[in-house]
Amino acid sequence: MQLLNEAIIRHGRLLGQDIIKVDSFLNHRVDTRLLAAMGHALADYFKASSPTVVLTVESSGIALAAMTAYALGGLPMVFAKKSVTVVQSDDMVYAPVYSFTHKNQNVIRVDKRYIEKESRVLIIDDFLADGQAAEGLLLLCQKLEAEVVGVGIAIEKDFMRGGRRLRENGVHLKSLAVILSVQDGVITLQND
Amino acid sequence: MQLLNEAIIRHGRLLGQDIIKVDSFLNHRVDTRLLAAMGHALADYFKASSPTVVLTVESSGIALAAMTAYALGGLPMVFAKKSVTVVQSDDMVYAPVYSFTHKNQNVIRVDKRYIEKESRVLIIDDFLADGQAAEGLLLLCQKLEAEVVGVGIAIEKDFMRGGRRLRENGVHLKSLAVILSVQDGVITLQND
Repeated sequence: MQLLNEAIIRHGRLLGQDIIKVDSFLNHRVDTRLLAAMGHALADYFKASSPTVVLTVESSGIALAAMTAYALGGLPMVFAKKSVTVVQSDDMVYAPVYSFTHKNQNVIRVDKRYIEKESRVLIIDDFLADGQAAEGLLLLCQKLEAEVVGVGIAIEKDFMRGGRRLRENGVHLKSLAVILSVQDGVITLQND
Repeated sequence: MQLLNEAIIRHGRLLGQDIIKVDSFLNHRVDTRLLAAMGHALADYFKASSPTVVLTVESSGIALAAMTAYALGGLPMVFAKKSVTVVQSDDMVYAPVYSFTHKNQNVIRVDKRYIEKESRVLIIDDFLADGQAAEGLLLLCQKLEAEVVGVGIAIEKDFMRGGRRLRENGVHLKSLAVILSVQDGVITLQND
């Protein structure tokens, strides 16, 4: 997606060898025009898969998931909640998620009432790196006996291999921008 | 706001004496049509105050803040980040927020680059009860030397007095729905 590629090149900040901060337009300050354009692009891409609900995980996926769900005709959007410990409840399903960024293990959870069996779930997130969050969301859907029709991502870091693993496992994955490499301060993006 | 009042009466669940769960349409599963309607209502209400940026705090304020900012012509939306400890950085401003729900003290923070001095800030949140989150966001704006032009809320619990305190302090506050009382399983809302 041209607009997003331009934002990454113009506003992405490199920290160290391979960390790209996009918090000036994506996950701390959010450019809501770009956000709406991304939501529409993901909705256009996945509408043929007829999702019935959009799922993300707090916090930074929420804005994009909301825009995408709204652009899909006003679908409900569910955000999985994150906590350090399991808050036991029979109403909930749980999945572990390890964060390489924060070097800690979280548990994510969804109330069973909000994603019914046989729902057609579109998973949305802002970032796909090692794929831990996406795999946690896939596990939640499996436990909920819901069908995942696709995974839509704003920015995929191809060199972190999470996306490759999902595709190899047959997941219908669409990333609006794909970072192929970061070397010597140069970000290389996949062409549209 | 009629649509929101109806959703509270129809889908709000009472827990104990005065806890109202609205997680089926507002802060776990989100009704994105209602969300867009709320965003437009807050944008219409505050557009005369000419905000230049929308500020909220993760997580459950993000979707509404994004919709409101987009409806205000694509303003940037900033969400303050929450953590248990202060991650010291000169780039950030901090404020303490005590959560009565979770009975813990958090610190919220915003990167100084993303809300410039003299910005006209519209604060948005999903809930206003005791007012701790709103007061934390007001303190951040004070530290950033930004002007708060208003505070827009989806649901205010009048009996928790946070809203009264803000109004008494001269804050321009608009809540789309106001819960006056919850007694013996009956929710009483302020009329539009």
